Amino acid sequence: NSMACPQQSDELIFFVNGRKVIERQADPEELLLYYLRKKHILFLNFRLSGTKYGCGIGGCGACTVMISTYDPVAKQIQHRPANSCLLPICSLHGAAVTTVEGVGSIKTRIHPIQERLAKCHGSQCGFCTPGMVMSIYALLRNHAEPSMEQIISALDGNLCRCTGYRPIIDSYRSFAREPTCCQLRGTGQCCLDQEECVCSSSTGDQVSYIRYFFPLSPVCLCNPEFPPMDPTQEFIFPPELMRMAQEQLRTLIFHGKRTTWISPTSLNELLELKAKYPKAPLVVGNTKLKKTHHDAYHPIILHPVRIPEMYVVSSTDDVIGAACCLAQLRDILMEAVPKLPEEKTKIYQALLQHLRTLAGEQIRSMASLGGHIVSRGSNWDLNPVLSVGKSVLNLASEDGKRQVLLNDQFLAGCEHADIKPKEVIVSVLIPYSMKDDFISAFRQAESQKNALSIVNSGMRVLFSPGTDIIADLSILYGGIGSTTLSARKSCEKLIGRQWNDQMLSEACKLVLEEIFLPSSAPGGRVEYRRTLLVSFLFRFYLEVLHGLHQMYPFRYAELSQEKMSALVMLPSGVPQGVQIYQVRCDVDSGQSPQDPVGRPIMHQSGIKHATGEAVYIDDIRPVDGELSLAVVTSIRAHAKIISIDASEALRVPGVVDVVTARDVPGENGKDEQAYAEEKVICVGQIICAVVAESVTQAKCGAEKVKIVYEDLEPILTIEDAIKHKSYITEERKIEKGDIEKGFESADEIIEGELHVGGQEHFYLETNSVLVIPRVEDKEMDVYVSTQHATDVQELVASALNLQSNKIMCHVKRVGGAFGGKITKPSLFAVIAAVAANKTGRPVRFVLERNMDMLITGGRHPFFGKYKVSERRSSTRANATFCTWAGIILNITLRKGTWGCWWMRSWT
Amino acid sequence: NSMACPQQSDELIFFVNGRKVIERQADPEELLLYYLRKKHILFLNFRLSGTKYGCGIGGCGACTVMISTYDPVAKQIQHRPANSCLLPICSLHGAAVTTVEGVGSIKTRIHPIQERLAKCHGSQCGFCTPGMVMSIYALLRNHAEPSMEQIISALDGNLCRCTGYRPIIDSYRSFAREPTCCQLRGTGQCCLDQEECVCSSSTGDQVSYIRYFFPLSPVCLCNPEFPPMDPTQEFIFPPELMRMAQEQLRTLIFHGKRTTWISPTSLNELLELKAKYPKAPLVVGNTKLKKTHHDAYHPIILHPVRIPEMYVVSSTDDVIGAACCLAQLRDILMEAVPKLPEEKTKIYQALLQHLRTLAGEQIRSMASLGGHIVSRGSNWDLNPVLSVGKSVLNLASEDGKRQVLLNDQFLAGCEHADIKPKEVIVSVLIPYSMKDDFISAFRQAESQKNALSIVNSGMRVLFSPGTDIIADLSILYGGIGSTTLSARKSCEKLIGRQWNDQMLSEACKLVLEEIFLPSSAPGGRVEYRRTLLVSFLFRFYLEVLHGLHQMYPFRYAELSQEKMSALVMLPSGVPQGVQIYQVRCDVDSGQSPQDPVGRPIMHQSGIKHATGEAVYIDDIRPVDGELSLAVVTSIRAHAKIISIDASEALRVPGVVDVVTARDVPGENGKDEQAYAEEKVICVGQIICAVVAESVTQAKCGAEKVKIVYEDLEPILTIEDAIKHKSYITEERKIEKGDIEKGFESADEIIEGELHVGGQEHFYLETNSVLVIPRVEDKEMDVYVSTQHATDVQELVASALNLQSNKIMCHVKRVGGAFGGKITKPSLFAVIAAVAANKTGRPVRFVLERNMDMLITGGRHPFFGKYKVSERRSSTRANATFCTWAGIILNITLRKGTWGCWWMRSWT
Repeated sequence: NSMACPQQSDELIFFVNGRKVIERQADPEELLLYYLRKKHILFLNFRLSGTKYGCGIGGCGACTVMISTYDPVAKQIQHRPANSCLLPICSLHGAAVTTVEGVGSIKTRIHPIQERLAKCHGSQCGFCTPGMVMSIYALLRNHAEPSMEQIISALDGNLCRCTGYRPIIDSYRSFAREPTCCQLRGTGQCCLDQEECVCSSSTGDQVSYIRYFFPLSPVCLCNPEFPPMDPTQEFIFPPELMRMAQEQLRTLIFHGKRTTWISPTSLNELLELKAKYPKAPLVVGNTKLKKTHHDAYHPIILHPVRIPEMYVVSSTDDVIGAACCLAQLRDILMEAVPKLPEEKTKIYQALLQHLRTLAGEQIRSMASLGGHIVSRGSNWDLNPVLSVGKSVLNLASEDGKRQVLLNDQFLAGCEHADIKPKEVIVSVLIPYSMKDDFISAFRQAESQKNALSIVNSGMRVLFSPGTDIIADLSILYGGIGSTTLSARKSCEKLIGRQWNDQMLSEACKLVLEEIFLPSSAPGGRVEYRRTLLVSFLFRFYLEVLHGLHQMYPFRYAELSQEKMSALVMLPSGVPQGVQIYQVRCDVDSGQSPQDPVGRPIMHQSGIKHATGEAVYIDDIRPVDGELSLAVVTSIRAHAKIISIDASEALRVPGVVDVVTARDVPGENGKDEQAYAEEKVICVGQIICAVVAESVTQAKCGAEKVKIVYEDLEPILTIEDAIKHKSYITEERKIEKGDIEKGFESADEIIEGELHVGGQEHFYLETNSVLVIPRVEDKEMDVYVSTQHATDVQELVASALNLQSNKIMCHVKRVGGAFGGKITKPSLFAVIAAVAANKTGRPVRFVLERNMDMLITGGRHPFFGKYKVSERRSSTRANATFCTWAGIILNITLRKGTWGCWWMRSWT
Repeated sequence: NSMACPQQSDELIFFVNGRKVIERQADPEELLLYYLRKKHILFLNFRLSGTKYGCGIGGCGACTVMISTYDPVAKQIQHRPANSCLLPICSLHGAAVTTVEGVGSIKTRIHPIQERLAKCHGSQCGFCTPGMVMSIYALLRNHAEPSMEQIISALDGNLCRCTGYRPIIDSYRSFAREPTCCQLRGTGQCCLDQEECVCSSSTGDQVSYIRYFFPLSPVCLCNPEFPPMDPTQEFIFPPELMRMAQEQLRTLIFHGKRTTWISPTSLNELLELKAKYPKAPLVVGNTKLKKTHHDAYHPIILHPVRIPEMYVVSSTDDVIGAACCLAQLRDILMEAVPKLPEEKTKIYQALLQHLRTLAGEQIRSMASLGGHIVSRGSNWDLNPVLSVGKSVLNLASEDGKRQVLLNDQFLAGCEHADIKPKEVIVSVLIPYSMKDDFISAFRQAESQKNALSIVNSGMRVLFSPGTDIIADLSILYGGIGSTTLSARKSCEKLIGRQWNDQMLSEACKLVLEEIFLPSSAPGGRVEYRRTLLVSFLFRFYLEVLHGLHQMYPFRYAELSQEKMSALVMLPSGVPQGVQIYQVRCDVDSGQSPQDPVGRPIMHQSGIKHATGEAVYIDDIRPVDGELSLAVVTSIRAHAKIISIDASEALRVPGVVDVVTARDVPGENGKDEQAYAEEKVICVGQIICAVVAESVTQAKCGAEKVKIVYEDLEPILTIEDAIKHKSYITEERKIEKGDIEKGFESADEIIEGELHVGGQEHFYLETNSVLVIPRVEDKEMDVYVSTQHATDVQELVASALNLQSNKIMCHVKRVGGAFGGKITKPSLFAVIAAVAANKTGRPVRFVLERNMDMLITGGRHPFFGKYKVSERRSSTRANATFCTWAGIILNITLRKGTWGCWWMRSWT
């Protein structure tokens, strides 16, 4: 018998939107997002493509789902938001998954969360919308009447590039327990009763009232006419899963193509497995980011979520299980702080400060404390704080238990301070702070929330009782080196010193010496980071001074007003923007009620955005015989291509063909080459494409293509390019008036240079193309996310040497574009169309986020020179002699709302 | 281990268009047509949908492919056309299949057969075209320069409903060895050199010269400028298969879902298997028609094609292997006849007469002699002739060999004369005829070729040597009863009689008494069939008289001129039509050469028709999640529907849903109900639909739906309907003039009735719909073969309660329609769209031929009354007083070319 029966896996059982899924061939490498989007879920008869791929690394929240689990000990159901792009399906045994389709759909019923978001203009391109819905849904399942802070915090992990967030938060304001309506209905003061209305909520903040028409009658945003949220209408937790959780547990094993997933049921079993497979990682939330497909490879994965010891939360002492997630840690600490004497909770408060800003709620809900500690990322925020707080790790192995200090040496990975391969972190002891302790946490990132720190820090000083004499001092910095760094020597030198200005300047000097950052340090921004080192120290100095005064008000002086100002926290929280639709004023009173022009009408696809039913390119059902495409891009900035060796790629199972510039029957691009021909002119330029039966196979093939380059001198800056006369287009010059005469007779000449940096467009939907060759006449249907359909049609037709009318370009909607989908999508369409033409099969080409950012390059940097002459004149009309200068303004809002740019005139 | 590994099958190895196919899960129930159309053939990357489904029973030739095999004994390659709709893939081990895609394609090269057919206007709807190409291709592979008779005979099994065949035969005339061009090129007389040209071929027949423009320059039809057929460009027979054929043979076993196919290598092994599985049929060409899916079911099938004894062709005696196909038999007999004394070949000649007209070349190439004999169909043509010729069957079983007579008792299935369950027919002995033998074969069918006989007959008389005294007489008739019937008693009574008029009238009386055909006999047309009984007898009488005269010209008188006329064969062969395109005359001389109007330009899709690349509805690639639909139709002419029980159908694996009138959200049809509601008004009315993952599952589900009827009085004729006042539309009356006055003053009144029967449209492409719901807004794409796209759009929209713009109706082309696809396709589209709407999945609904004919009902019969008054008048202007009467003329050409109808005016 030649048919090998595969190694037996356990059945993976979970629920999706109330339906049971039994997966008999669960692959540990399969992640929930792709599973939902591509698999026919049993009985559901459709792919759950409402959950979107935005970044694939848990950064944007477009893939948010809700994971519900039952804790048989606490007899509690937990609902947590999660980034499905990171979640291995194997981690879902016994869990109930809710996707946006399960929250509500046009076919079933539209959920209030979806309805309000749509009707309050909370969606524009709509691509982030399902994730927004899911984040709020998970919040409301846990907190029926959340605070505005909770609402905003729930959206921490969700990026939107169109709206600026204000309309989204406005939509959900109506679920908040604080009264947010003007509450003046009928008094003649409500937004509904007035022609114009700017009013204040009872909290004193100015809030927004949105008046919109649906269906063409005015409704107040916070109007009770919105159908209320009715918790009885939601899916209950499946009783079957409750029974499963209470039953005798048994070890679960899932064999994938190359990875085996083992979920033991007891600590002893885990320790045995860890002894047997010392290299096997313990995976809880799988939020640690892997750089490549191969980086992520582990033959064995241990999944310790069913081990009670790793979930211990001691209410009597300060031990927390290593498998607890960061959101749990936050909730535990938040509950503990008010109950304990303040002096004991200083480290808790410092941790909480970071736990509120670290990543998004989805990551916080999945990432484990133990994982955070053991992975020891240089800019992981909690480690410096835990370390200065002298936290202790409770380790276990087959050989017994022991404790190690979570100190700077552990964080640096020093062998003597590290955990051994057979050991696991069972729990973490976070000691209470003492009376004379001062602990602070600092971080600086590109945005307040959901951004990795540029530099972070944990600092602690312990004074000799009742004095300001330093008895102990710890200062740790993250984001400087490859691990968290300690200013251990500096601190030692400062012991015994008084907490005063002399100590501070000494400290700054010492720290800058010890924490050395060479000017070529990876990550750049060296000056900035150096500044942060001392800025954090200065602030700690002030915080402690302020603390000393508060503790001993008569012994230590109050801070000056000026210094106090440095301690003020930056405002965060509820956006203060206001948008008022003046319905009756904006439109002509004679306008027919049926005429929508000028009225704030819901986005035509608003409801579909919110229910996930809006179809984007990659949501189009697979087509018979479809191939996936992955590209090979240049790793050189400027080089000749000497050879392309695809032989190994072609041997990868499932790889059908490798496509290069030679396969383009017609024009290979227009301003840029679609496939690089003789040479490459930038990193990320597409050289060839691998088409295969699956995305994984195509990517695997692409990695195996060998390209030999002969380097040429790279041109890296605009200045370089000017020097080499390497221009994309003609130099642009805007002149006005008689230049020569103007400057000759000028009273004053203003001149200068203007540099504007490049910027990612970061449309939430990455570039996506689906090309379907028709059988007849070489016709092709091109489904593409573009702002310029005609360009796609023309470039594809000219690449294939066909008349334009043979190419049907379909654009239903784009998931964000912002100018970034004007020219590039045409090239991607050519890439896919040439492959489809060569193979005769449909080709899907959906870029991964990193590839999209690498290849497209974003908005390019600008460099401009201006020179304006001014002649003072007695007559007002001739007061200024003007030239125009092109100035590009990029306005970046919170978390990167899409920048606007325009040409501004100077007169 | 819960995964059962399936029973091990052998690898089925065959070639398709030069590529090797290894099928590891060959299912004996899978037929080649469906396999080619639906499977991705390894490496080919596309479905071979050029091979079309027209009837599914080997009757229309649209599915023709060429099967090439190698005979290791004769060291010969045989190319035979075959109906792929009947061919089990398991029968293909070691064979090379050529489909129309293998003959030529736009992507590779267009074959001369394809080019000439397209350019000579041989395609109209194009659906039969690939089959035409394949039939001629198979002919040309065997005969590079065929005769016109061979060309026409090669097309016997191919139906075309558009062209009338003439242009097709004209296209292929250029391949014939007879000179067919006007041969006057350059003399100033050629059709190309003249303004007008009607000329004769050297054979004396008027032939057609077609002048056409491609690309806009005139070419003579038989022009040498056509690229010649170059045999070196064709696929060679795969050497690998040649090696396979010469290797040691071993038994092949293929296990299907419910059937096992066994192909033994020796007679002994076959006999063992037949002893073990006495009910297992021996299948060679699988041309025996099965009525239903279940009729066709056999758990074991034996395939005896590799047993040398069954292929014996004795050149010394008259034994022919039972597995030889009818085309082989024909070729053997044609070769034998000129070599043997004429008196010995009388039975051969009678057999040849039938072998030329029986079915089409595809069936003749696959059907085996043994299968023809043993299946004993009442209107199988050869059996009566073989029987009167006293043929003998050589049988074998485990118990040994024996012979039985192929006589009337064998044909009637009498137990004592029959073969036993364990026996197989190894070969057939057809004895030479004798000097005083006269053997004739008769058949009457709806067309000369490719039609089952209505009545057939074999007759033989043996005279006492040198006399006209009947020594032995046999008369057998097919098509009368359920088996072939013998006039045995009548014949016995006539022995000893002289061959004269008295004998004839006695014989007629006796035969009509013995071969009794009750007026309610199944099949109807009783009077006609009775007439045929004696007509055949009369003709036999004359043929024998004529033969006696020829043998003994001085003893027996010559037939009168009148009687001789009855012996003339109906003309057959080359069509005599002429079509002349008067290029320069038809279009205005001032017409721009770029202006195509009025010029005989090739069909825009002509080449695509001929290469099979033109896409019809069922050629559209499968869509993700697509369901197949089968309908349950009424078996009552008029009845109330009491209940529909779908419970058993829903339990069939793969069945997704059962759809009834209750699932129609809007209007259920327009003039007719799409799904029957309360009652049915005809047999074949659609009551409900079963949707399933596969066609087989849907059909199986449909068979399991139980419907309880309460019969109502049926209305079966137009007269009945008038009596019951059951009208579809208002009665139509066409009146002209002052009716009352006209009839009062009439000199003459002509009145009468006019009955016109119904007729099948028989478009080659059966009704086909593919409905694809879009995900958004309940939009649907409806791909449908219709003449009335707007009607489809409107009916589907109104059935689903949607605006019309939600329904996109796509019609690229139809594979024949002839008025039959004006109203019915809309109903089929509603059937499918309602199912798609209910399930949310794409639905494909392609009718099988029998269902299409059952449901659509064809052109309905007409009944008209006319009354015309005529008043004789002295003035010419008033010579006739007219009324109009509707007269419908149906003109049916050979093999049912589509009828034209029009209203003709009488004046």
